[in-house]
Amino acid sequence: MKLLEDKIREEGILLKGNVLKVDSFLNHQMDVELLDEMGKEFYQHFKDKKINKILTIESSGIGIAVMCAKYFGYPKVVFAKKGNSSNLTGDIYCCKEKSYTRNVEYNVQVSKRFLKEEDHVLIIDDFLANGEALNALIDICRQANATVEGCGIVITKSYQKGLKRIQDMGIEVFSLANIKKMENEIEFV
Amino acid sequence: MKLLEDKIREEGILLKGNVLKVDSFLNHQMDVELLDEMGKEFYQHFKDKKINKILTIESSGIGIAVMCAKYFGYPKVVFAKKGNSSNLTGDIYCCKEKSYTRNVEYNVQVSKRFLKEEDHVLIIDDFLANGEALNALIDICRQANATVEGCGIVITKSYQKGLKRIQDMGIEVFSLANIKKMENEIEFV
Repeated sequence: MKLLEDKIREEGILLKGNVLKVDSFLNHQMDVELLDEMGKEFYQHFKDKKINKILTIESSGIGIAVMCAKYFGYPKVVFAKKGNSSNLTGDIYCCKEKSYTRNVEYNVQVSKRFLKEEDHVLIIDDFLANGEALNALIDICRQANATVEGCGIVITKSYQKGLKRIQDMGIEVFSLANIKKMENEIEFV
Repeated sequence: MKLLEDKIREEGILLKGNVLKVDSFLNHQMDVELLDEMGKEFYQHFKDKKINKILTIESSGIGIAVMCAKYFGYPKVVFAKKGNSSNLTGDIYCCKEKSYTRNVEYNVQVSKRFLKEEDHVLIIDDFLANGEALNALIDICRQANATVEGCGIVITKSYQKGLKRIQDMGIEVFSLANIKKMENEIEFV
């Protein structure tokens, strides 16, 4: 997606430890007009799949997932929660995730009430690097016996292990921007 | 907003400790079509204000704020972060908040790059009870010398101290559902 690649080139900041900071438009301040275009792209790609639910993870995936839902005719959006919330009572699906940027381990949790065997799920997230978060979301779908129809990712670092890891499960990953190298500058696939 | 009151009556669950659980449509699973209607209502109410930024707090405010932004012509949406993220570097505005439902204290943080003196801010959040989160967001706007044009809240428990606390600061609060009493059943104002 050219619009997104241009935005990453203009506003993305490379930090130490192979971190790409895109907080001016994606995960702290949000450019909702761009999110809307992203939602449309995900719809164009996945529109022939039978999708009745969008699953994402707090917090950065929520804005994109919501904009995406509009194009798919408003399927329910579920966002997985990190950690333990006293407000998440009852039966939950749970999977551990190790955050790449924060270097801590979370519980990723989804209430069993909101993910069922009959669900055909599109998973949406902002980044795919080592694939920890995505792996947790897929694991949770499998616990629920739901069908994962595909993953829509805003930015994939395709030189890290996550992309291959998810594709090796037989799951389709569609990324709006694919980074193949990121040293002094960002190179897209 | 009748549509919302009906939804709360139908799907809201009263838990011990005066907690209203609305996770089937607002803060775990999201009914994006309803969120879209909420966004329109906030726009109808605040459309004559000069708003160039929407501020909310992760995670439950994000979906509503994003849907709201569409109606206001896509102002930037900023979501405040809770806790400490290694990805939030540089100068930040910070305020402590004590969560009502989780009974823990957070740092509420916004990067100084995304909130400026010239900003006219609409604050959006899902719940107003004791007003801790809203107070933190207002405090952060004041640190930035930004103008708070008003607060748009999905559900206000008007019998708790938050509403008066915010109004006493001279700030307008517009709520889509006002609960005046919540014992065996929910009574709206």
